[in-house]
Amino acid sequence: MTKEEKEYLEFAKELSKEAGKIMLEYFSKENFYSYKADKTIVTEVDKKINTFIIDEIKKKYPGQAILGEEEKYGKSAYTWICDPIDGTAMYARKIPISVFSLALAKDGIPILGVVYDPFTDNLYSAFKGNGAYQNNTPIKVNNYELEDPNSLMNFDIWPTAEYNLYPILEILGKKIYTVSIGSIIRAGIEIAKGGFSLAIFPGTKDKNYDVAALKVIVEEAGGKVTNLFGEEERYDQSIHGAIISNKVIHEEIVKLVKENLK
Amino acid sequence: MTKEEKEYLEFAKELSKEAGKIMLEYFSKENFYSYKADKTIVTEVDKKINTFIIDEIKKKYPGQAILGEEEKYGKSAYTWICDPIDGTAMYARKIPISVFSLALAKDGIPILGVVYDPFTDNLYSAFKGNGAYQNNTPIKVNNYELEDPNSLMNFDIWPTAEYNLYPILEILGKKIYTVSIGSIIRAGIEIAKGGFSLAIFPGTKDKNYDVAALKVIVEEAGGKVTNLFGEEERYDQSIHGAIISNKVIHEEIVKLVKENLK
Repeated sequence: MTKEEKEYLEFAKELSKEAGKIMLEYFSKENFYSYKADKTIVTEVDKKINTFIIDEIKKKYPGQAILGEEEKYGKSAYTWICDPIDGTAMYARKIPISVFSLALAKDGIPILGVVYDPFTDNLYSAFKGNGAYQNNTPIKVNNYELEDPNSLMNFDIWPTAEYNLYPILEILGKKIYTVSIGSIIRAGIEIAKGGFSLAIFPGTKDKNYDVAALKVIVEEAGGKVTNLFGEEERYDQSIHGAIISNKVIHEEIVKLVKENLK
Repeated sequence: MTKEEKEYLEFAKELSKEAGKIMLEYFSKENFYSYKADKTIVTEVDKKINTFIIDEIKKKYPGQAILGEEEKYGKSAYTWICDPIDGTAMYARKIPISVFSLALAKDGIPILGVVYDPFTDNLYSAFKGNGAYQNNTPIKVNNYELEDPNSLMNFDIWPTAEYNLYPILEILGKKIYTVSIGSIIRAGIEIAKGGFSLAIFPGTKDKNYDVAALKVIVEEAGGKVTNLFGEEERYDQSIHGAIISNKVIHEEIVKLVKENLK
């Protein structure tokens, strides 16, 4: 890595840790026993982290663009893409499974990704061409075939999801143990670590926020990330869903999705 | 509560905390970056907790029966039902979302339930007729209708599941945000707390281990627990799946399941 690349990565890691502190602070603050009240808190934390990230990037790299879920800023070949809390529905319910995510894309291609899990204090990171890491230890995807008994799939469904994945879910769910842990980014990280083999994600509008950091982390760990049709995407704009895999089974899944997508 | 009932509850709570310590000890011990290696560890922890629970119950209540996932013991009107780690696939992957669960059934009907989440240090408990608690604070289910935007459903699917729930999942998933967090017991607890509205569970053989404690905790919190056909079950033997709900939507779900179960 060049000195400049290292500086980018160190900067992103520091921001992640700070964002994680804010997440934990609110998470443990109070237990309202009311999901509606907690949801309001989540919106606050989300905004607070977003503002913090935007301010810091503006100071350090003025002129670079920023896409935050709550606020967007500037236009440049370099775009920072931030998802302050992925898994807000879990966070609001005090289920410790959400993460902070930040990516840097050059001409739409993610070159840097960091994901921080404050609940287990694990920082995942990658810089294009330099491998993927959990803290300071290299991570890599597994090499399981689809029906390996150790394989596990994550998928996301929600009432307004842009693609209907039910036929695909039924085909795959009969082959492979399936979860939907409430954070696609945490699930994608598990693919990079070899714990899951596959994730299928039906989101489009602004859902590049959910996949940008994974694109570089999972691929640097040896996996593959495309849209639902097996195509590359720019991650500084909306995407056409995502297939995130250990690479071994990627083409098989793309084929299955293409044949069965309604 | 009678003195005897209090003693049962205190005893079960103490065992939970001890089991949670064992869970945490192994969880944080090492990070193997290999799911296969971690799975072996989980089997060890599971057995260790199971043996510990059986030994303690034998000492305190000799003559009462015990159903542990790894070992069964005795026959009596009083049966202890233990799931040492619910959510082992998550535990093995170091995703902090598994729980310990213990119930006491009299003539097959759960009268006491404790569930301990060691990752957030929350102990959930209920004794029939005396309310449900998160630590020392009473908890209750929400009152959301099915399509309330705050509603959330958990469901479980796995390749060898005894009932085919896909048609039901497709109908419900288009109405309500859906997750599958990898531990039916942790999901059921979220119903008791008002965070989720509904869980559907297709398991039969030995799956009473997964629902026994929830039966009393969720119902003492104001919810409802039946099998997939809306019927009561004995929890000292295998069950016919489960619907766990906030009660408000229970009959609607039973009807939908009966009409669409393949």
